[in-house]
Amino acid sequence: MVNKSESSQIIFERLPDIDGIKTYTFETNTKYKNREDLLVVVFDKDAIAAGVYTSSLCPSAPVEWCKENINYDKIRGLVVNSGNSNAFTGKRGVQTVSNMVNSLAKNINCNIEGIAIASTGVIGEFLDESSIVEAIETIDLRMPTSTWIDAAKSIMTTDTFPKLASKVCKIGNCEIIINGIAKGSGMIAPDMATMLSFMFTNANITHSLLQEILRETTNISFNAITVDGDTSTSDTFLAFSSNKADHRLIKDINDPLIQGFINSFKEVAINLAKQIVRDGEGATKFVTIDLEGAISNNSANIIAKSIANSPLFKTAIFGEDPNWGRIVMAIGKAGEPASRDKVKIWIGNNLVASEGVVDINYKEDMVADYMKNKNINIKIDVGVGEGSGRIWTCDLSHQYITINADYRS
Amino acid sequence: MVNKSESSQIIFERLPDIDGIKTYTFETNTKYKNREDLLVVVFDKDAIAAGVYTSSLCPSAPVEWCKENINYDKIRGLVVNSGNSNAFTGKRGVQTVSNMVNSLAKNINCNIEGIAIASTGVIGEFLDESSIVEAIETIDLRMPTSTWIDAAKSIMTTDTFPKLASKVCKIGNCEIIINGIAKGSGMIAPDMATMLSFMFTNANITHSLLQEILRETTNISFNAITVDGDTSTSDTFLAFSSNKADHRLIKDINDPLIQGFINSFKEVAINLAKQIVRDGEGATKFVTIDLEGAISNNSANIIAKSIANSPLFKTAIFGEDPNWGRIVMAIGKAGEPASRDKVKIWIGNNLVASEGVVDINYKEDMVADYMKNKNINIKIDVGVGEGSGRIWTCDLSHQYITINADYRS
Repeated sequence: MVNKSESSQIIFERLPDIDGIKTYTFETNTKYKNREDLLVVVFDKDAIAAGVYTSSLCPSAPVEWCKENINYDKIRGLVVNSGNSNAFTGKRGVQTVSNMVNSLAKNINCNIEGIAIASTGVIGEFLDESSIVEAIETIDLRMPTSTWIDAAKSIMTTDTFPKLASKVCKIGNCEIIINGIAKGSGMIAPDMATMLSFMFTNANITHSLLQEILRETTNISFNAITVDGDTSTSDTFLAFSSNKADHRLIKDINDPLIQGFINSFKEVAINLAKQIVRDGEGATKFVTIDLEGAISNNSANIIAKSIANSPLFKTAIFGEDPNWGRIVMAIGKAGEPASRDKVKIWIGNNLVASEGVVDINYKEDMVADYMKNKNINIKIDVGVGEGSGRIWTCDLSHQYITINADYRS
Repeated sequence: MVNKSESSQIIFERLPDIDGIKTYTFETNTKYKNREDLLVVVFDKDAIAAGVYTSSLCPSAPVEWCKENINYDKIRGLVVNSGNSNAFTGKRGVQTVSNMVNSLAKNINCNIEGIAIASTGVIGEFLDESSIVEAIETIDLRMPTSTWIDAAKSIMTTDTFPKLASKVCKIGNCEIIINGIAKGSGMIAPDMATMLSFMFTNANITHSLLQEILRETTNISFNAITVDGDTSTSDTFLAFSSNKADHRLIKDINDPLIQGFINSFKEVAINLAKQIVRDGEGATKFVTIDLEGAISNNSANIIAKSIANSPLFKTAIFGEDPNWGRIVMAIGKAGEPASRDKVKIWIGNNLVASEGVVDINYKEDMVADYMKNKNINIKIDVGVGEGSGRIWTCDLSHQYITINADYRS
């Protein structure tokens, strides 16, 4: 069974329905015009949830709500609006969250602790929630639901395409669906989920187990990507399960029955994370950095992120310039142990540097050709240990400047 | 006397000669064509020196030479070439340094430990030093010397203007000259001198005192600027004194006689540091960030640098967008104590945010007008203590991408 689940394909279009989960999307004109900007998800009965949030010390009001108030064992709804992140909005922002949460709790008749919330968009402007509340009040659970692609579209801000992925696996004989949506294209950096992502399943597992799986998953997916090194005040990664699948309740992360599910869950999250990098503001290249030979996995990640976040490295990628000197620079500035005279650097399959100098067989022409690819793989061995890590990133282009120089206008 | 020195003006053109210090510049065609790319400075007798170097763990061969071999009490010469940084060039790079140092030591008849060296330019390409050595061999101390502006020009790489500054002060009755030159426009970040800068004086002080002054100076000048957050493998800040001034030898940083000199020395260095920011690759704005109310000065600097290095903040400045939400984001991601609900932000003289929300008197139009200025001042109070710090930076523009996407071609 487990093998079967692992061999199934990731689904990007027409994600399957999940028993017990309903999605609704609305055009509220809060900030954007002529597009849907509100997602409401309703669970038939108490769902379980898990969450990972921004490490920012100035989190948004919605993040505070989720961290401090929701009951992860009894979730009935999720509200997500795009265009205004309700961050740095003080007491009025807290009231706004309360009004949004209350309107859904009242409509579906549950406690307010049963409602999760996330907001994305401009920081520091008051969010006028009136049309959001109005939309929520119109929800009738007999209404036709929105598709998952509509759900993914409704949470977009500067994203150029909706991000969604799904996988079907088995737990015992039960078919388990894992659907995920995400948004984010700038202000994306490791050190937390770094965007909004929501995953939904029907697996019958405990809140604590889902939380454990979510943490492991975050480290190798959303914490392994970076667009510009900036961390948002609103980053939120939530997972929900309707618990409707008809297998025995699973509590233990080592339970053999759950291993295929965990792999599939991670696969969907990694796929969503990579979609965010591909949609990095102005991105023209998708870059995979494999860092080996560090003193620890943590050290490898720090060095890989130092490279991935270096503006000089990123612009060289944009310029299709195999400027490996900038990789050396970024290794050096990371402040982690590395042996300058043992460092090896591969661009694609080409060994460009080894033992502290350019490799004798290195031909710039050949590597310059490789740099024209859309997908660039870079491998580095820093020569001091066994630690390794992988980070995905994109280049830094003119388009990034254009998008961000007039984001608000 | 001290007061007099403090009131004198910074000089930018036609820097005065300093007794005992000769400068020579050459066109060696090592990398650049039709411009001078080699600076040699010769001291009549043993000069004293002080140095601060890159914190990079992959420093260049010239940096290693200075850190490990030179005798700061008996310096006779300095060699600086531009175009190739001789970094990540292994044993061959070490040999190159040795050949360059030897040729000058032989010519002026001193120990090789008397020769300091610095190189700047592309990383990871072998430096063919033959034409540099040839030029050094032609030096005849009776030759006419080059001007300080030629010296400043000869060390430029992507710089668009030469950076030099000078101040005349007094120690006792002696006239003391402080001349400084610098280069750097990208790969500039705090956490070390972050570029090349050389300062020259005739004050009669000890090597240890000059080193103390240099360290204090570095923290408030070259360590207080950032262009792109990248730290070079070649960063070097060296100071030299011919010791020719006819006042008693000064050893103690608290000696009343030296205070005016220290202030002037810092003033010249800060001026050079600001020139680097103004020439930041593609810079269109000069930004001063004053951070107050942090738990310590160190914490204030970390938060200020987090803002200064944020690509989203920098592009907003380029776009003349008073997007203070991005300042909040960067405060949040710095990971240092800050009170979200007490943060105050001023853009120019306009209080835009206080107590966790947009200020009631904030008018976006007024601040949008202010953003059109070339010089932007931003003040932030994070509301948790008495620590403060000041960082200078520039915006992130299309031109930065253009310059760095094809630096090597």
